[in-house]
Amino acid sequence: MELKGACIVGQSGGPTSVINASVYGVIHTALKNPNITRVLGAEHGIKGVLNDRLFDMGQEDPNELALLKYTPSSALGSCRYKMADPDVDETDYKRILEIFQKYNVRYFFYNGGNDSMDTCNKISKYMQRVGYDCRVMGVPKTIDNDLYGTDHCPGYGSAAKYIATSCMEVYQDARVYDTGMVCIIEIMGRHAGWLAGAAALATAYGAGPDLVYLPEVDFDMDQFLADVERIYKERGNCMVAVSEGIHYADGSFVSEAKTSATDGFGHAQLGGLAAMLAQIVKEKLGVKVRGIELSLLQRCGAHLASETDIEEAFMAGKAAVENAAAGISDKMVGFERAYEGGHYICRTRLLNLTDVANTEKKVPLDWINENHNGVKQPFIDYVLPLIQGEPCLPKEDSLPRFARLKKVLTK
Amino acid sequence: MELKGACIVGQSGGPTSVINASVYGVIHTALKNPNITRVLGAEHGIKGVLNDRLFDMGQEDPNELALLKYTPSSALGSCRYKMADPDVDETDYKRILEIFQKYNVRYFFYNGGNDSMDTCNKISKYMQRVGYDCRVMGVPKTIDNDLYGTDHCPGYGSAAKYIATSCMEVYQDARVYDTGMVCIIEIMGRHAGWLAGAAALATAYGAGPDLVYLPEVDFDMDQFLADVERIYKERGNCMVAVSEGIHYADGSFVSEAKTSATDGFGHAQLGGLAAMLAQIVKEKLGVKVRGIELSLLQRCGAHLASETDIEEAFMAGKAAVENAAAGISDKMVGFERAYEGGHYICRTRLLNLTDVANTEKKVPLDWINENHNGVKQPFIDYVLPLIQGEPCLPKEDSLPRFARLKKVLTK
Repeated sequence: MELKGACIVGQSGGPTSVINASVYGVIHTALKNPNITRVLGAEHGIKGVLNDRLFDMGQEDPNELALLKYTPSSALGSCRYKMADPDVDETDYKRILEIFQKYNVRYFFYNGGNDSMDTCNKISKYMQRVGYDCRVMGVPKTIDNDLYGTDHCPGYGSAAKYIATSCMEVYQDARVYDTGMVCIIEIMGRHAGWLAGAAALATAYGAGPDLVYLPEVDFDMDQFLADVERIYKERGNCMVAVSEGIHYADGSFVSEAKTSATDGFGHAQLGGLAAMLAQIVKEKLGVKVRGIELSLLQRCGAHLASETDIEEAFMAGKAAVENAAAGISDKMVGFERAYEGGHYICRTRLLNLTDVANTEKKVPLDWINENHNGVKQPFIDYVLPLIQGEPCLPKEDSLPRFARLKKVLTK
Repeated sequence: MELKGACIVGQSGGPTSVINASVYGVIHTALKNPNITRVLGAEHGIKGVLNDRLFDMGQEDPNELALLKYTPSSALGSCRYKMADPDVDETDYKRILEIFQKYNVRYFFYNGGNDSMDTCNKISKYMQRVGYDCRVMGVPKTIDNDLYGTDHCPGYGSAAKYIATSCMEVYQDARVYDTGMVCIIEIMGRHAGWLAGAAALATAYGAGPDLVYLPEVDFDMDQFLADVERIYKERGNCMVAVSEGIHYADGSFVSEAKTSATDGFGHAQLGGLAAMLAQIVKEKLGVKVRGIELSLLQRCGAHLASETDIEEAFMAGKAAVENAAAGISDKMVGFERAYEGGHYICRTRLLNLTDVANTEKKVPLDWINENHNGVKQPFIDYVLPLIQGEPCLPKEDSLPRFARLKKVLTK
């Protein structure tokens, strides 16, 4: 079972508030492991391996490394790089093997979402095929929360907390005048509505959107306008949360659709979905509108991170190393939840990389209401434990103190 | 000097994260004052007086009132209502006098920005003219920080902190890939660049915009594109902060201008300035872009409020009541800063309402760099003390616990 050698850790895909907590879980645990001779960080994910751009993490100041827990985005750099099918083109795989051999890499940890687990899976299978002994483990990450087989994903809880808190604050602001307003908040999530649904947490706590639209169901513009008009007439204001991925019944994204109402809608790429929907509401209903896109803020808002999410992200990285050191390979660390004495607890479980790669998990349809404009209580019960806890954020003059890594390249 | 009677407090103009802290300063202090017989909150500012919609603040739960310190936006409701010149139309003033007499109102506190101080001033002068004994005090508020005669305004420090922190986080995110990006962040401030300048705090702490454009100087699109291109070529990425109020030399707002480059720019109202500038950069330089508008988030982001700002906002409300009770009228509470033993301290000072009304304070031109694309150290030194301190935010299940007022209308 004992396998001595270096490890490589890489980050891939869109960053989150806590992906660095996972990488710190890997690095911190690997640096202490007697069988792991060297801990290397890949610059920009697998591209850093291909380009032989590897940082020697052992040369970092441990105090700076510890700050990774509270530093958003991918500290090692990320990439969006689709690996070829090795049966079609083996070039990249041969290069990766060459680098693994050069540094005697026997442990490979890859931290990312769906596409990254595909990369991880392909590398794992290739190394098996060529008989190179390397333990490959996926460490999950995605604000989208759409990885298969895990109760939830590191990164989601913090983004959900950012979204819910921001909605609660905007709710206070968007109804302050004696004249009404329709406020539309655009939330990330191209194919799954986990993030947009988190806006409903704000509503559950008394200050959130009246309407929430997820991409799991078809969007109907006429029904949307009728919903907004009804709420506005009833309450004098209307707040709406929409997933960026809402689409019509024919599958076309609302954000990309040209409607006949005005040629202005063709310029949706300028301002995004929220601005476009706000404009449509303004033209159809003649009311004051405001479109707000949470944009990158929701995925890097570490100042609103969930302590639960940070600790679970760290735990996922740590579990990847511990399991690999114990002889396990070709898995992704996933989560399962339990309730002990009514209290939420989260445990790791191992999933086959093959099963995880490229499979998306969506919001269950029976968690979405009948009118397709909101979520039901099971959704709230699901997400609430994930946003809990306030981390003690390192600050310098009341501004965030993020990790400053030396990033010493291996010779 | 003793004057017994009720007081009215109202909020007006765009809300902030801490305007309720000021109103709490008024209410809390007035409720304890033996000469103030009743504390009334005007619904939607002066409109609540005109419409006889007044809440009896004495009937609120003191614990809920205390939560106002941490509740963003205007809890009593706000308005944007321009009072007529009383020499032209006395209707509103007569009505206000009628209401003041009806409830024996002898103290009037108005919490707002430039326009609100104009309202406050006009009411003060009218009451003097008709010989109705009522002490009128303005309580400053504006994230724009553009009130005349005061070192700074309550609300600014918290918005500045939100902007600087968000820029630091986005900075981490916007350079995570091995491919570069130009990221443009749009910040509030139609005529004054105090808010946009605060983005430079992020830069001073190692993770902020490369370029900052304020409305105090003319914007030149060609120079802007040259600036962005130069930085992008040098550093592989470029982050830009722009005030929504940047304008060309002829005074026209960049956000409203139609450029000849593409008819798409005519739709700037859809997505705002950031999206429009991002689009222009994309077309001219052919690089990946992202436009982010901080929108309402920056003015209601109480979860990032500055403790200094909260306490000063409270102090301003308290000082208004204490000074009025001591016989002073026709003033706005302002701030002056001092440094004792190198430490920033803030004291209140009283300004004539006449002087404050409708006068805007802009960023000094010698705090803006020679290239008109950044701010200099005096700006940083000015703003840094204002963002200090982390409030202990009341939370419920890790979400904000805002004040829930009963809002009992007077009979």
